[in-house]
Amino acid sequence: MTQFMNSRDTLVTEALDGLIRASGGKLARLDGYPHIRVVVRTDWERDRVALVSGGGSGHEPAHAGFVGRGMLTAAVCGDVFASPSVEAVLAGILAVTGPAGCLLIVKNYTGDRLNFGLAAERARAFGLRVEMVIVDDDVALPDLPQPRGIAGTLFVHKIAGALAEGGGDLETVAAAARQTIAGTVSIGMSLDTCTIPGSPKTERIEPGQSELGLGIHGEAGAERMRFSTARHAIEAMLARLAARTRPGPKVALINNLGATTGLEMSVLTGELLASAVGGDIRCLVGPAPMMTSLDMHGFSLSLLPLTPEAEAALRLPVAPHAWPPLSDVGEVAVRAMPDGLTPLKPKPSRDNRTAAFLARCCDILIAAEADLNALDARSGDGDTGSTLASAARSLKASISSLPLADLTQLYRAIGNELSQTMGGSSGVLLAIFFSAVGDAAASGHTMSDALRAGLARVQEVGGARPGDRTMIDALAPSLAVLADGLSASAAAARAGADATARMSRAGAGRASYISEAQLIGHNDPGAEAVARLFEQLASA
Amino acid sequence: MTQFMNSRDTLVTEALDGLIRASGGKLARLDGYPHIRVVVRTDWERDRVALVSGGGSGHEPAHAGFVGRGMLTAAVCGDVFASPSVEAVLAGILAVTGPAGCLLIVKNYTGDRLNFGLAAERARAFGLRVEMVIVDDDVALPDLPQPRGIAGTLFVHKIAGALAEGGGDLETVAAAARQTIAGTVSIGMSLDTCTIPGSPKTERIEPGQSELGLGIHGEAGAERMRFSTARHAIEAMLARLAARTRPGPKVALINNLGATTGLEMSVLTGELLASAVGGDIRCLVGPAPMMTSLDMHGFSLSLLPLTPEAEAALRLPVAPHAWPPLSDVGEVAVRAMPDGLTPLKPKPSRDNRTAAFLARCCDILIAAEADLNALDARSGDGDTGSTLASAARSLKASISSLPLADLTQLYRAIGNELSQTMGGSSGVLLAIFFSAVGDAAASGHTMSDALRAGLARVQEVGGARPGDRTMIDALAPSLAVLADGLSASAAAARAGADATARMSRAGAGRASYISEAQLIGHNDPGAEAVARLFEQLASA
Repeated sequence: MTQFMNSRDTLVTEALDGLIRASGGKLARLDGYPHIRVVVRTDWERDRVALVSGGGSGHEPAHAGFVGRGMLTAAVCGDVFASPSVEAVLAGILAVTGPAGCLLIVKNYTGDRLNFGLAAERARAFGLRVEMVIVDDDVALPDLPQPRGIAGTLFVHKIAGALAEGGGDLETVAAAARQTIAGTVSIGMSLDTCTIPGSPKTERIEPGQSELGLGIHGEAGAERMRFSTARHAIEAMLARLAARTRPGPKVALINNLGATTGLEMSVLTGELLASAVGGDIRCLVGPAPMMTSLDMHGFSLSLLPLTPEAEAALRLPVAPHAWPPLSDVGEVAVRAMPDGLTPLKPKPSRDNRTAAFLARCCDILIAAEADLNALDARSGDGDTGSTLASAARSLKASISSLPLADLTQLYRAIGNELSQTMGGSSGVLLAIFFSAVGDAAASGHTMSDALRAGLARVQEVGGARPGDRTMIDALAPSLAVLADGLSASAAAARAGADATARMSRAGAGRASYISEAQLIGHNDPGAEAVARLFEQLASA
Repeated sequence: MTQFMNSRDTLVTEALDGLIRASGGKLARLDGYPHIRVVVRTDWERDRVALVSGGGSGHEPAHAGFVGRGMLTAAVCGDVFASPSVEAVLAGILAVTGPAGCLLIVKNYTGDRLNFGLAAERARAFGLRVEMVIVDDDVALPDLPQPRGIAGTLFVHKIAGALAEGGGDLETVAAAARQTIAGTVSIGMSLDTCTIPGSPKTERIEPGQSELGLGIHGEAGAERMRFSTARHAIEAMLARLAARTRPGPKVALINNLGATTGLEMSVLTGELLASAVGGDIRCLVGPAPMMTSLDMHGFSLSLLPLTPEAEAALRLPVAPHAWPPLSDVGEVAVRAMPDGLTPLKPKPSRDNRTAAFLARCCDILIAAEADLNALDARSGDGDTGSTLASAARSLKASISSLPLADLTQLYRAIGNELSQTMGGSSGVLLAIFFSAVGDAAASGHTMSDALRAGLARVQEVGGARPGDRTMIDALAPSLAVLADGLSASAAAARAGADATARMSRAGAGRASYISEAQLIGHNDPGAEAVARLFEQLASA
C-alpha cells in the first residue's frame, strides 16, 4: 500500500515536525530525535499541574494534536502503534513538571503502563510529584480484567486539562481524571482494517461485514457481524454501552477512526441522537477524528455522565483546534420554504404585433428542425433542431397567455417557459438569456442594450467566449449591430455562424469533447439557428 | 463496498440532519426534503450581504459545514457529486437574501453554473440583488478554457465571508471574491480512487502509482506517475502551481481529500514548508479535510498571494469549526533535552551485612533458574528462571559499586540496575517496585511499609490483582506479615505461591492468553520465585 511519506523510519518525526511548523509557534519538541519524540506547548510556565500523555503514534490528532492551552502540556510519541520508551516519557515529564507536579494520562496497554510507570518512578526520585491514571474505557470484552483505553481518553485529557489550566492542585486534577475514567465507556465499530505504513494491508473483514468492539491498533474486534444499516450499527453499540451505564444526562463523543466520510459520520451522529439512549445525550463532542487508527473505516462512541463539573470543564475553550467544541444537542431545526419558488403566472395581455413577431420567430425555428439536427449530428447527439423546434411549438401554443403588452414581463415569462419546456443546458442558458433581458428592460435599457445584457449574462454563466464555436459566435456580432437594423444584424449573424465552420476547437459545451476533424467544415448548430432567425426576420 | 448509511436515497438528507442536530442550534434547514436540501445559519438577520454556495454532496465539510458566522449564510446541497436543482438554489437565495443582496459562490462545473445561474435570474426577477462568482482554481490542465473549482473555493468562502460579516456591500464582497479567485491556484494528488456510496469502487490507480491533477468527483487525474516519496509529490505539485504564480508572500491551504492519515498530512505539510516555494508561504490553512472527495486517499494544495487584506479576512474568527484557523508558519522549535535522563550513578558505600544479604538473595534466584524455567514452560516461553538468574548475576557482580550504606539510595539503584539488565515487563515491574520502595523509605516509612508501598505501585502500574496468578499472589501475603518476622512471611509466600496452582485464569501478563487446562496444577513461576526467596532467607 502506498502512503504519503518519505520513509517508514522517518514517518513519525517528520509528521511531528510538520505539526510543529504549522502550529503557529504554539508547539515545540525536545531535541531527542529520533528516539525521543516529545511535543510540548510553548506557552508553559511550569506554574500549574502539567499533563503528560502519549503512546504509540498512528492515532492522530492524538496525542500531539491535543497539546496546548487547556489540554495536554506534553505528548510523548512512540513509533506507529508502539509505546514510547521509559527515557522518552521521563524526558517529557522532566521537561514540563514544576512544583505543582504532573499527571500522566495513560491508555491501558501493558507497554504504556510499564514505560510511563517506570518513568514516573524515575521522576519521583528527583523529588517531582507525579501521579498516573490509566484509561480503560473500552467495553468490548465485558469480562476482561484490563479493558483497553480508546477514544474516551479524550474526555480525560479535556476535563483534567481544564482543571489544571484553572490552577487546580495535583490531587484535584488526578481525582477528576479518575472520576472521568470511572464514568467513561466506549466501543468501536469498523467496516475494514487499517493500513500499517510500509506494510501490506491485512484484509480481515469481508465486504458486508463489520467488526464490533475493536481496538485502535488493528486488533480484531470482539464480535463479527453482518453490517446492515447505520441505525443497526448504532443500536448494537449502544446495547453494549447501555449495559455499563445508568440512565441520566450524558455527553457523547463520536470519533472518526480514520477514513469514514463526513456524510457517514453525520448519518451516524443523527442515528445516535435519534436512538433510545439519545434522549439522555445532552451534549456532543464531534463527530471528528480524535483518536484514530490510521486509515480505519470505522468510528467509536464514548459516553460520560454529564455532571455540572464535567460540563464546565468540557466547555472551556482550548488552544488545540483538533478538539471539537462541546455542542448542545437539539432537534433538527426546520424553516418554512420561502415564497416565490413557483414563478407567478404573469397576467396575460394583448399586443397583436408582438404576438405576430413571436409566432414568426417560432415558425422559423420549427422550419429549421431537420437542418439543425443534421448539423448537430456532426458534433453532438443530433437533437439541437428538435429541441429548439419543440420549445418553439410549445411557446407558440402559449402566446395568448403571455403578458404581450409588457415587454419586461414578457421576456421573463419566455425565460420561465423555456426553462420548463426545453430542458438540458441549452434550455437553462436560453432561460437565463431571456430573464436577464427582462431585468435589463425593467431597469430602462433600450431593447438593443437589454439583449446585449442578456448575452453578457449567458456568457458569464455558461462560460462560452466568442470563438468557442457556440451560438455566441452568431449572437454576439448580430446584437452588436442591432441598433443599425435587422439587415445588418442578420448579415453579422450569418458571418458569425459561417465562421464557426472554421473553428477547430470547441471551448464550452458538449462539442468540446469532439475531435477537430469532425468539426471543420460544418457550422455550429446553435450559431446556425441564430443566423437563420435573424436572416428570416430581416427578409420578412 | 459497505458504508455507514441507512440507504443510498436518504444518505444526504440524513447526514444534513445529523449535522444540524449536532450544531448546537447554529444551523437549520429549509422544509424542502427530499429534493431541496438547504442549510442556513440561524443567527442571520438579512442585514448584510448573504453568501450562498453549494454543489454536489460528498465534499464534506464543504459546503454545509462552512455555514455560520463569518462564512456561508446558506449551503445548497445536491446529491452525491450532483448539482442541486435550480429550485433548490433559488430556495436558498430567497431564504437568506435581504436588501444588501446575495453573492453566489459557485465551483466551475457546468451543472452548478447553469443551475445557480438560472436561480440567480429568477431571484433577480423578485428585485433581489444577486451576484455570482465562479471559482476555477484547478491548474491540472493548463490549457483548459474552463478549469475546475476545487479546494481553493475555501479561500473565497472565507474572505468573502469576512467582508460580508463586517458589513461590506455587495460590490465590495463580490470584488474581493473575484480578486481571490483570480489569485488562487490549486492542484490535487491521490494514491487511490474514492468510493461512491452504494457503488462498487472503481479500481483505477495501481498500488505504487499516483494521479496528479485530479478533480473532486472521482475524475481521472491529468497525469499518472509512479509515487516515490512525499517530497517528490510536493515538488511535482508545486512545479505545476509555480508556473501559474509569481514569487511573493503566500498563504497555502492543504486539504485532506478524505482518507489520508494525520501522519501523512503532517509529513506533506512539512515537505511543503521545506520546499523551494515554502519560503514564500507565510501562513497556512490546515492540514484538514475541507473539500473532500468522499474517502479519497489524496490531498490538494492551494496557494493565494498574501495581501494584508486577504490576511485580515482569513484571520477573522468564524463559527464553523470545520474551518481551521490561519496559522503562522515557523521553523521547528527545538528545546534542549532536560537533565536527569541518565540516572546518576550513586556514590558507592560499604555495609557488609547488606552486601551479604543481597548476595544471598542473588544466589537463591540463580540456584532456582532451572526449576523456574520448567514452571514457566507450562504457561509462557520458559525463560522466567533465566531472566531472574541473569539479572541476579549482574546485580551480584555490581554489589561493590552500590550505595550499600544508604537504603533509600540502594533500593533506587537496584531498580535502575534491574531496568537496564532484565528487560521485558518483569524487569520494568521490578524496577518500579524497588524505585517505589526507595521513595517510601526516603519519606520515613518502616522497611515493611516501604516494601508494601512498592507492591502497591507495582499493582497500580502492572494492573495485576491478587488471584491473577502472578508474583503478587506470593508477594502480597508475604509482605502483609513481614512485621511478624521472616518465617511468617515465608510461610505466607509459600501458601500464596502454591495457591496459584489452583488458579485457572491469569488476569494479567502473558499467561492470560493460555488455556486453563495448561495452568492448573503448576505454580506461577514468579510467585514460586518469591516463595523460594523468602523460604531460603528465613532458613538461613
